Formats: sequence, C-alpha cells, structure tokens
Amino acid sequence: MNTTTILRAVATGERSAREVCDEALAHIEASDGAINAFTEITAERARAEADAVDARRARGESLPPLAGLPYAVKNLFDIEGLTTLAGSKVNQGLPAAHEDAVLVQRLQSAGAVLVGALNMDEYAYGFTTENTHYGPTRNPRDTTRIAGGSSGGSGAAVAARQVPLTLGSDTNGSIRVPASLCGAWGLKPTFGRLSRRGTYPFVHSIDHLGPIADSVQGLALAYDAMQGPDALDPGCHALRVQAALPSLRQGAGGLRIGVLGGYFRDFASAPARAAVDLAARTLGAHDEVLWPDAALARAAAFIVTASEGGSLHLDDLRSRPQDFEPLSVDRFISGLLQPADWYLRAQRFRRAYRDKVNALFQDWDVLIAPATPVSAPTIGSEWIEINGTSHLCRPAMGLLTQPISFAGCPVVAAPLWPEGTGGMPIGVQLIAAPWNEALCLRAARILEEAGTARMEQ
Amino acid sequence: MNTTTILRAVATGERSAREVCDEALAHIEASDGAINAFTEITAERARAEADAVDARRARGESLPPLAGLPYAVKNLFDIEGLTTLAGSKVNQGLPAAHEDAVLVQRLQSAGAVLVGALNMDEYAYGFTTENTHYGPTRNPRDTTRIAGGSSGGSGAAVAARQVPLTLGSDTNGSIRVPASLCGAWGLKPTFGRLSRRGTYPFVHSIDHLGPIADSVQGLALAYDAMQGPDALDPGCHALRVQAALPSLRQGAGGLRIGVLGGYFRDFASAPARAAVDLAARTLGAHDEVLWPDAALARAAAFIVTASEGGSLHLDDLRSRPQDFEPLSVDRFISGLLQPADWYLRAQRFRRAYRDKVNALFQDWDVLIAPATPVSAPTIGSEWIEINGTSHLCRPAMGLLTQPISFAGCPVVAAPLWPEGTGGMPIGVQLIAAPWNEALCLRAARILEEAGTARMEQ
Repeated sequence: MNTTTILRAVATGERSAREVCDEALAHIEASDGAINAFTEITAERARAEADAVDARRARGESLPPLAGLPYAVKNLFDIEGLTTLAGSKVNQGLPAAHEDAVLVQRLQSAGAVLVGALNMDEYAYGFTTENTHYGPTRNPRDTTRIAGGSSGGSGAAVAARQVPLTLGSDTNGSIRVPASLCGAWGLKPTFGRLSRRGTYPFVHSIDHLGPIADSVQGLALAYDAMQGPDALDPGCHALRVQAALPSLRQGAGGLRIGVLGGYFRDFASAPARAAVDLAARTLGAHDEVLWPDAALARAAAFIVTASEGGSLHLDDLRSRPQDFEPLSVDRFISGLLQPADWYLRAQRFRRAYRDKVNALFQDWDVLIAPATPVSAPTIGSEWIEINGTSHLCRPAMGLLTQPISFAGCPVVAAPLWPEGTGGMPIGVQLIAAPWNEALCLRAARILEEAGTARMEQ
Repeated sequence: MNTTTILRAVATGERSAREVCDEALAHIEASDGAINAFTEITAERARAEADAVDARRARGESLPPLAGLPYAVKNLFDIEGLTTLAGSKVNQGLPAAHEDAVLVQRLQSAGAVLVGALNMDEYAYGFTTENTHYGPTRNPRDTTRIAGGSSGGSGAAVAARQVPLTLGSDTNGSIRVPASLCGAWGLKPTFGRLSRRGTYPFVHSIDHLGPIADSVQGLALAYDAMQGPDALDPGCHALRVQAALPSLRQGAGGLRIGVLGGYFRDFASAPARAAVDLAARTLGAHDEVLWPDAALARAAAFIVTASEGGSLHLDDLRSRPQDFEPLSVDRFISGLLQPADWYLRAQRFRRAYRDKVNALFQDWDVLIAPATPVSAPTIGSEWIEINGTSHLCRPAMGLLTQPISFAGCPVVAAPLWPEGTGGMPIGVQLIAAPWNEALCLRAARILEEAGTARMEQ
C-alpha cells in the first residue's frame, strides 16, 4: 500500500477510506513497539475522517486530491484536543490545542486522514530522535540504529510503511536527515512558503515545515494541498519573494544540474559520495559547483538556533532545567547567554550569504549534495568518523543540511542505496533557488523513474 | 524666504535658482558660526545644480516640483565625492562616497539644490547634538541651548532659516526631538517607507529617514519627491504593507482625533501639556486615549538600539574606543555585551506591540502627544526635572518619541509656542496608522492654517 495505490483504490471505490484507515491503524499497532515512531494514535478521529470521505463518495460528490490517505504529524503540530508536546516533558502541563495547525486543516480539507502524532527530539533540538522522555525512535531498516531527527518519527513511520505521508519540521536538517537515514522522500520547502500557524516553534527565523512521503508523487500532492498564503502565519513577514527565476536550457529533463564540491565532499563518507555520484550520473550532471561560505553558514546557523531556541525557553530553563532533555539542555542555556553581538553578526552574515547563494542559481537549476555525512549510526553513538576524522555524532548529522536551510532554498531529500552501508539507505539533497520547489520535485521524479532513488532497496 | 515663496519665485522666473542659492550660501556663511549646524558646505555643487535649473527654464522646459529649493542633509547621507562622517571621527578614514544616497538623488531629480551636510550626534546615538568632535549645534532660538538630536543640524538649519528643507534620520526620535526643540516641522514616515540606500546605518531594524521643513507644504513636497519603492533598499525586506485603513468619520477636517494620556502626560512638563492642549483644541479632540505598553516599548527600543548599534561598531570599539564620542561609547560597548536573549525578547515583544498599536487605529485617525518632555535645555545639562522628578537629560529627550517609532507609525512633529518656556518652542506629535502619512500631514495643515503651530512665535 503506497500513496498511488491508496489514492487510486479510494478514488475508484475499490476500497473504502475506512478499510484503508483500519489497515493503517492495525499495522501501526503491530509494528510500533519495535519502532517507537508514534507518541499518540488518533484512531477515533481517523475513523471519523475516513467515514466522512466514504460519505462524500456515497453522496456521489467528487473526492478531494488526498481522499483517504492516512498520515501522521510530528508532535509539534497542534491537533485539536491534544496537548502539543513538541517532544518535551515540560509541555505535558499545557492545555490541549483548541484547533488544528493550519497545515493539518489543509490536509484534512484535501481528504487525508490523520492517524496520530510522531516522536521527535525535544523541542526539535537534535538530529537523532534519541528522546529521553519518550524513548528513541528506531530506524525501520535496522532497529539498532537511529532514525535521524528531529523529525525521526516522521521519517521512520514512512519508511516502516505505517503511513505513506507524514509532516515534519526542518530548521537545520530535521526533515532531510531522517529522510536520508530512514530511506524516505522529504521536502523542505523555501523558507516562509508553508504557514507555521499552530505549530510549536523552535527558531523563529529559520523554522520550516514540510512533508516526508513514500514517493515524489506523495511529496508533490501534499505540498500542493498545503501551499498558499496564510495571513495569520507568524512567519509570513519573513517572506521575500525575490526568486531567481532560472531559464531551463540543458541537462536532464532540460535542467542545468551541478554537483556541490568542496565542503560537501570533504564532509561526506564514501557511501555519501557514491550516492551523489549515482544521482549525478542519472541526471547527467558533470560540473562541480562551489557553494559559498558553507562552514560559516553552519556556524551562523548554530548561533541563531541556540540563541532563539534558548530565549524561547528561558523561563522553564531557569525554573526546571531538570525536566529538559539532558542531551540538549546545556546547549539551550549556553545559547541564551551568547552576546547579542554574536546573534546580530550571524543574522547580518545571513543577508549577504543569501545573496551569494541566490546568485548561484543564475547558472544552475538544481544542485546535488549528500543529505547526511554517513548512513544511520547505531543508537547511542557518541562519535562518528568521516574520512578519517572524528566528529561528535549528534551535531555532525546536520553538517550538510544546515548551510542549505540557512539560505532558505527548497530541497528534496531523495533516498538512495549505495554500496558500503550494509544495506542502509542514504539521501541526496536536490537543491533549487528559493520558490522553485517544482525544480527539486522534477529532478526527484527523474531519479525515481530511473530507479536510482526509491523507498526500498 | 520660505519654501512657498522660493518655489513660486523660481517657477515664475521672478528670481533665478542661482540667486536663491547664492543668498542661501551667504546666509549660511554669516550665521553658522553661531549655530554650527553645518559640517560641510557644498557651494560648487549647489551652484551647478541651481544653474541646471535655470538652464532648463531658459530652454523653456517645465520645472520639477522642488526647482531651485536649497536643502541640506544630515551628514550620514552619502554625498558623491564626500566622506560620510555620520558625526564620527572614526569615519574620517573612509573613502569618499561614489554616489549620492537615493533620497538625495530623488531630491536632485525634483530640482532641489544641495548646499551642504549637517551636524549630528555621533553615529546618531544621542538626542542633543552635543558632538564632541565637531562641537555642539546650538539652538537658533537661544544659542545657549541644545538643538536636540540626533538630527540637530537638520533642525537648527531650518529654524535658523539657513535652508527651508533638510533631511534627517529618526530611530528613537532623532527627527522629532530637534524639530520640537528648534521649532520646525518634522516628518518621520512609516518604518520602511523611504529607501535607506546610501545612508550610514545606526539600528537596522528601527532606522527611518525623513524631512524637516519650514511648513507642512515643505514636508509634503519633499515626502512626495522621495517616496516610492527602491528594490536595492537595504531595509526593504522590513516592509509590511498591512495598514489599518481608517474610515474618515468625524472631528476636525473629518478626522477622528484623540489625545494620548497616561505615560504621555506623566512624562510631559506643563508647557508640553499646554502645547498638546492647544493642538487638541484646534483639532476638536476631546477624548483621552491610552497607548499600550509605552514604557515597555521604550525599554525594548533601548535594548535593540544598543545591541544593533554596538554590534555594528564592534571592530572599532575594540581597537580604538578612544576615538568614539565619550557621551555614548559606554552605551555602545554595554549594548553589544547584552545577552542575545534580551535582544530576542525585545524583538518578540515588538511584534505583539505593533499589533496592539495598530488596533488603536481602528478607532482613531490621528493621535496627539508631546514630542519632548520639555523645551530645549541648556547645552551641557546633565539633569532635567519633569513634574518634580529628576531625569538624565540626554536620554529623557526621547521619552515620548521612542515608543512611537518602535511601533513604526508615521508622525509629523508640529512646532508650538505655549506659555512657560521663556519663548522657546515645543513640538507635538501627530501620529497615524502605518502607511497613513497623509493623515498626519492633513492634521498638521489644520494646525498650521489656524496659526496654532508655526515656525515663528
């Protein structure tokens, strides 16, 4: 059961939405003990939403584009009637949400069926979903390994075929890292593109929301259902519609595609490079492109993340630090003590950096880079090795995603299965100019049709 | 010689632009020893610009709206061929500007004639223009008194009738304070409205530019010549076009006008209150309105100002603090050491604050408040008294302007001459919803026509 077969079966009436929903709920119940992707199952709501789809069908109405598609959301999305945990213990004391997050409302309008909420790193501050309060989410490809994070539940639930679609958030790589490590398709849209209303924030000036799915079709359908302006979006003032609109001249499918070198090869293990080479070959990409100031951008993203994240939680960090995730609480505290000057320099750098990055897309439609330096490490790993150098495992998972999101570019993470990973997947990033999600999706579709990138080995 | 008579005389050919220009230059030379408004006279350029206007006339071409009007700019505006001092000693080492600031270009296109650059507080960080490097600018109404700041030269030059129009900048009150203390008309437009390209910045997220003039007509003509988008404006991403568009129902000239109470009366001396009462009477305003969170907004503006200002000058503050203005260098240094959390809380507060302020304008078209707590103190004053309480003189000059600019609303400062000031002027602020400069100007024009506000006692 995947996005295409479910949508077709429900549309043709071959299966009812309720049957599909019950099957998904049963599969989640049977499998989640080993995976720990879900923190809440919304069975009652799911059945009601599925029944509503079936009722429309019975009345002879036309069905919306995602009719009957089961999905689940990272537990930082508001779900009416549930407390929005955002992976924390602290939030357990908050009242239940009064209404759904805007993106959940939009998926509901599109006919999708919400089956639950998903595990994550506390307050989205991590790349591994080794959540001390709710337990680690395990990689469905090998349950001794991490699923990546912070949207670890979102990546694992799709890879385990519990649901064909999930929503996650991505500040420094939190959609792309779990997509890479679990072997699923992920889309981090342009900064500002999807409304953040009704989600628990992490870093106001860098947070993005987006889908993880079992196919490029799934990403595209979900993205289409969720996009469009929202006047009450807390992030909407961040919008800067100044897309470089690339002309389509050459390369695979008419796209001009380059491969990021330098930093993006230095911090890639042999399998990560192999994945990029496979994608480049399929896409007919030969030229190496240098992304400007990647290491500086990562440093600046760290500063902004720690400052804004820490500032958001100051009162609780003061009064009850013992209730925070031990893996990230020290970074929150140090972040809010950083001098304002560091924060402001990082944001000033970002303005110039975005201009430099956007200029690249005068010459390129899509740029390819690895999504993670390595395939999934085992749970509890403190260190990993990349090309002979040791790195702290948890922050290193974001080495290759952080510079891209700091510029705000849209990215599809595509799952590949190169040699040398013991059968584990690893993702590549397909990066386009701001507001050009369609180019990422087009390149992704080429990889999918060629069989180069796919959900299963 | 004022704006109206100059424009009419040049337009009719009664006087040449060159005659007007030479007269202005002679008057500046004769008067500026006592005032110290100018740091540079651009006589050669002024004569060339005036001659160009006369040549157009000689060719029978129609003249642009400001043809032949002499003006000068705060020395943080780029003037091609001159070093942009921004009131500092440090900037003396910078190369000359390659081109004019955008607003200077626009005034030139409108036929205005640039006669020089004007004194200011160093890097715009002050309300008194007691500039240690270039000497204090003296108030033309009484040269023992301050002209206000940071656009002190801009206020004094207009009040001394050296030029009918100047440009200044306003982050926390730097146009409105000197307009109030010198007795001139000032306009601080909506945050983001006028392009800041080609000006030396102070606080990226609060800086505004605007005119000081001898009449409402002068403000309106200059504003019209300068407005309009500029794609290269470094502040243009700050634009949020979400104006409350008030319907015009009642009150003077069809305007619903209220008077700010609470904070804005508590920190107003008897003459400042008297000025507000005079304006309110002329405008038929009877109701007291409470502006939300004024004291908090001032505190937040201080934090943002010191952080961004300090961060901008970090390298020089480290290497050559002795070259900075002794009156402000400590505030710069302390600002950049503030924790990032303070800065972020101030900016978060600002978002909610703007929403509260904008909501006021559902009920009101224009709100009246004093521009300064007192009329001009003597140069060197350390303390002033407001309603029996002592305040540090220099920061206190911004008590009543800072909360307004932090919300981004447009304001006209109108000069009044109440009892009890020893013949000194004091300004009132006419405040409207964002993007409604026209309402401020309309209320100002009513005060001007009634003789309630005027350049001369």
